[in-house]
Amino acid sequence: MRRGSLHGETDLSAVSFISPVTEEIKLVEERMRSQADESHSDLRAALDHLMSAGGKRVRPTLGLLVGNMLSAPLERSVTFSAAVELLHTATLVHDDLIDGALLRRGMATLNARWSPPATVLTGDFLFARAAVLAAEVDHLPLMKLFSETLATIVNGELTQMFASRGLVSRENYYKRIYAKTASLFELTSRGAAMVSDASADMVEAMRDFGYQIGMAFQIVDDILDFNGDQNAVGKPLGSDLLNGLVTLPAIYYAEINPDDMDVLSLPQGGWTHTENMTRLVENIRASSCAQKAMVEAEQCVDRALTRLNACEKCPERDALESLAKYIVDRRI
Amino acid sequence: MRRGSLHGETDLSAVSFISPVTEEIKLVEERMRSQADESHSDLRAALDHLMSAGGKRVRPTLGLLVGNMLSAPLERSVTFSAAVELLHTATLVHDDLIDGALLRRGMATLNARWSPPATVLTGDFLFARAAVLAAEVDHLPLMKLFSETLATIVNGELTQMFASRGLVSRENYYKRIYAKTASLFELTSRGAAMVSDASADMVEAMRDFGYQIGMAFQIVDDILDFNGDQNAVGKPLGSDLLNGLVTLPAIYYAEINPDDMDVLSLPQGGWTHTENMTRLVENIRASSCAQKAMVEAEQCVDRALTRLNACEKCPERDALESLAKYIVDRRI
Repeated sequence: MRRGSLHGETDLSAVSFISPVTEEIKLVEERMRSQADESHSDLRAALDHLMSAGGKRVRPTLGLLVGNMLSAPLERSVTFSAAVELLHTATLVHDDLIDGALLRRGMATLNARWSPPATVLTGDFLFARAAVLAAEVDHLPLMKLFSETLATIVNGELTQMFASRGLVSRENYYKRIYAKTASLFELTSRGAAMVSDASADMVEAMRDFGYQIGMAFQIVDDILDFNGDQNAVGKPLGSDLLNGLVTLPAIYYAEINPDDMDVLSLPQGGWTHTENMTRLVENIRASSCAQKAMVEAEQCVDRALTRLNACEKCPERDALESLAKYIVDRRI
Repeated sequence: MRRGSLHGETDLSAVSFISPVTEEIKLVEERMRSQADESHSDLRAALDHLMSAGGKRVRPTLGLLVGNMLSAPLERSVTFSAAVELLHTATLVHDDLIDGALLRRGMATLNARWSPPATVLTGDFLFARAAVLAAEVDHLPLMKLFSETLATIVNGELTQMFASRGLVSRENYYKRIYAKTASLFELTSRGAAMVSDASADMVEAMRDFGYQIGMAFQIVDDILDFNGDQNAVGKPLGSDLLNGLVTLPAIYYAEINPDDMDVLSLPQGGWTHTENMTRLVENIRASSCAQKAMVEAEQCVDRALTRLNACEKCPERDALESLAKYIVDRRI
């Protein structure tokens, strides 16, 4: 279960949802880079490396679109979006260290180039600067949410690490992907609405919009682990399952085939038998379980789109619609 | 250059400066422990282990004494002090991981018991919950200072990691110990004054009080690395120098003996020659350089004590005086 990548997943110019905030995204990136201005040159170089790896900046785009749509002061939207993206970057740095990943989408991870101590501290530094930026938004309830979300993300990772591997319930899966991914999307759109003069109803609509596309985003990520372009993903197909991490397509398969011997082996640690799991991955790929999971992701996106009815028609609303649809249409 | 320990440095009951806030310290500890209430049992066990390792709770004591002296609402002082101590604990968890330390004052470190990934994430979790607590103090300027201080601490560690080892200037040394230790003491007393109805002058007096005792605390730590009780410190004498970390006693020695061949070797990486460095440690121990450094720590404490003149006489002021004096009197 990878989490949205640091790296360029598609050509930025081709992604229509970014166009209303192209200039603002540059401000966000400047703001992020400037966090290392007074630090050692090696740290500045590390942040440059992480930033140049690019990515679509889905989260800042979400924050800026919601903020602009609801007439939030630009400075606040930019600062908040930079805080969110820096927090996301920090979690990826520690994730890669923990997983021992040397590549993320074809680019060297920080820990592939640096020692573990330097990587731990760089992640810590990014967390700290993300908190500084969040505080600079000057909005106490937002700051509380920001800290709570960081705690939710880390707690989710710890729970995933401590919890027994193998078969999990759907409920457990939803909790896990909320902590891992949807919580930050939710924070982003909710926070951007909070710093606007939006009504409580609008803040709630935007919170749910972020939550729904965040859940869809992770479900699609987990589907792509089974049927994505292996070269682009950079990992063997089904690598989650090979690591004992059971995601939605596998949960559907287990529900439909409760007597499958490989499924039955999961609670007893059967996922450690690579040969059997390779067979299970093939069986899941041959089944309709990925499509079933995709239906669920599409339902999340539909719920998100319904939430946009609360907003006046405007270019930002159109872009949010494109962004939501992109989440399920992407191939990587 | 170790940083104040997690562990019981002396019998709590014997330390007079704690007595006015004994009950409040318990509230702080409860508040810290409760941060893992909704987490996995393994994480709760880890926090229990870290907390039971004890320590004198110098930072929360400082925060509570200043807060009570200036009539801060108790709930705020307790929350803030818990935030500070949890932040301190988080930095120690990552420090020990980075140093590969298996013991801190005779007790197993977290990384001695757990895998590096679990240790990284536990540190992250403690950072996150420290930020949650800091936000719960409900004071935006304080939250900004809190995040800035976290960034200062981590940036200091990164700078120390990246910077060339060996001889440094006194100025460089002061910057390093400010980032490492004094910044958190400064935050503690300043923040406790900020959440009171104290005047700007009083906030500044308390900020400087914390700064001065924090600088003294680290200077004394660095002296104890040369002449402390080796069993209690749990490291060979002069271990900082053996690791290429030049602290105040060594800086004085280098100033007085610029032609000493071991001193001359430092900028060229001479600290990697254990035999020569053992000789240098012995020469520094035989010199008056530790005493010179102690004079400097005492001057810091004197400046701190002067700051207390801004306060009315009260039990908390007396306790702050004892705390400041304890910093230079301690033997471990």
